Amino acid sequence: MPKHSRPIDLTQVSEWRDGSLRSVQDYLAAEEPLEIRVNGAPLSVTMRTPGHDLELVAGFLLTEGIIQRREEIASLEEGAGDNAEADGNVVCVELSGQTFELESMRRNFFAASSCGICGKASIESIRIRGIQPPNSDFRFDPDLLCTLPDKLRSAQAIFGRTGGLHAAALFSSEGDLIVAREDIGRHNAVDKIIGWALLEKRLPLSQCALLVSGRGGFEIVQKALVAGIPVLASVSAPSGLAVRLARELGLTLVGFLRGQRFLIYSREDRLAPVPPVRGK
Amino acid sequence: MPKHSRPIDLTQVSEWRDGSLRSVQDYLAAEEPLEIRVNGAPLSVTMRTPGHDLELVAGFLLTEGIIQRREEIASLEEGAGDNAEADGNVVCVELSGQTFELESMRRNFFAASSCGICGKASIESIRIRGIQPPNSDFRFDPDLLCTLPDKLRSAQAIFGRTGGLHAAALFSSEGDLIVAREDIGRHNAVDKIIGWALLEKRLPLSQCALLVSGRGGFEIVQKALVAGIPVLASVSAPSGLAVRLARELGLTLVGFLRGQRFLIYSREDRLAPVPPVRGK
Repeated sequence: MPKHSRPIDLTQVSEWRDGSLRSVQDYLAAEEPLEIRVNGAPLSVTMRTPGHDLELVAGFLLTEGIIQRREEIASLEEGAGDNAEADGNVVCVELSGQTFELESMRRNFFAASSCGICGKASIESIRIRGIQPPNSDFRFDPDLLCTLPDKLRSAQAIFGRTGGLHAAALFSSEGDLIVAREDIGRHNAVDKIIGWALLEKRLPLSQCALLVSGRGGFEIVQKALVAGIPVLASVSAPSGLAVRLARELGLTLVGFLRGQRFLIYSREDRLAPVPPVRGK
Repeated sequence: MPKHSRPIDLTQVSEWRDGSLRSVQDYLAAEEPLEIRVNGAPLSVTMRTPGHDLELVAGFLLTEGIIQRREEIASLEEGAGDNAEADGNVVCVELSGQTFELESMRRNFFAASSCGICGKASIESIRIRGIQPPNSDFRFDPDLLCTLPDKLRSAQAIFGRTGGLHAAALFSSEGDLIVAREDIGRHNAVDKIIGWALLEKRLPLSQCALLVSGRGGFEIVQKALVAGIPVLASVSAPSGLAVRLARELGLTLVGFLRGQRFLIYSREDRLAPVPPVRGK
């Protein structure tokens, strides 16, 4: 399997528990872009966990209505990427049938879907956009950090009864909740927060921590960076790509924030008064 | 607020608990498509929970790199839909600045993202695709249904350690696990399952139940219907739109499948030997 196609990444992180910090190994679910090429032309890029990629593409083509039958797939195979990073992240499909029109399909794809969740092809694309590392001087008390999930849940009181909503909330360095938003899409809850800040002329959010209710995926890290947020915490696991992006751009990324324990995936120096585990 | 823009739907569902069935009220997180129109032309359709839509659009434009500053938004307002269904689900933006080129932006959107997660504009689009109601004669034992989450977790043993993966698994009517797949995206895990079935020439999956580890959103219901799956269960909450689609197309939709209890949102008659709560 190519280098970039492992379903699990193993990495060294810091564990904060009851006031002390230690270095531990953590397994991360891999998240990589997969480019689907149909009859030689790119159709779509989707973020996925590597593994069973041919099945993923076959299922995507069917469930998105691009094909109706197995027989329309003339060939289906892993393709070479344009560079090393893309190796293992391309699947090439040949579709048969005179009814196939890539252009109309692409237009249809554009018209029918575009979500901001997926397909940010790589960390490189973030760099190209000129996104800057967030505020290095910001500090957040780790004991205070542990109180944020309860505050988020309280703010979710109305929506909590559905059991079906993601939430995101922005906190000051004193731990005060500034704004909370909910949505069936975690990325939407974050976009609502950042949109609020934009409309209120509060950007960049260089003195704030952002808490999200679910996983800390690549797109959440990206959105936090765009808004200049220095500390991003989630109650669940980040993906491997999210951690790589956070490390490259210098975002403090916290996962598994539950009770008096959390994991720090990058830039633990912002979580004062804890001394950094690794010198830098 | 327009009819279709409530953040919570209230609906009547069946609760199965320890072998008996009763009718209960359930709150559902609403999920509706939001069309973003820029300078009069549609840019994107995204599935979201109604509420704070202007913030959502502002945040989307910023975090997706379409704008860099608040000042680029000349106006931002809710727009009228082309029909009653779309009312409350359109936001119109006017962007200023000579650098704005919708066409290049649209191309960029297509090239950079397209995921199959979002933007299936409505139930109508499913109907237009000619998707048929799944097998009416299929039956699944509710006691057996309660054993499926443990079986899925066992199949997840390797990935479970990351804590960051969604899983989906296909089961026979005898409760045997046929295939399980995992991915950082729930929709991808389902596409991998359905792609497997397509490549193995096992479609339609008219004798199978599908279990997903997270929420049962609109796109998961849609994908299950494309594959002809008659019973879809999730361990968490479905969205309001997912329930509407399941009811209209006659899919058996189960949520909150935990321990010896679950909720049935549609077509409980397939969950034999439980007698239906409501006559038909």
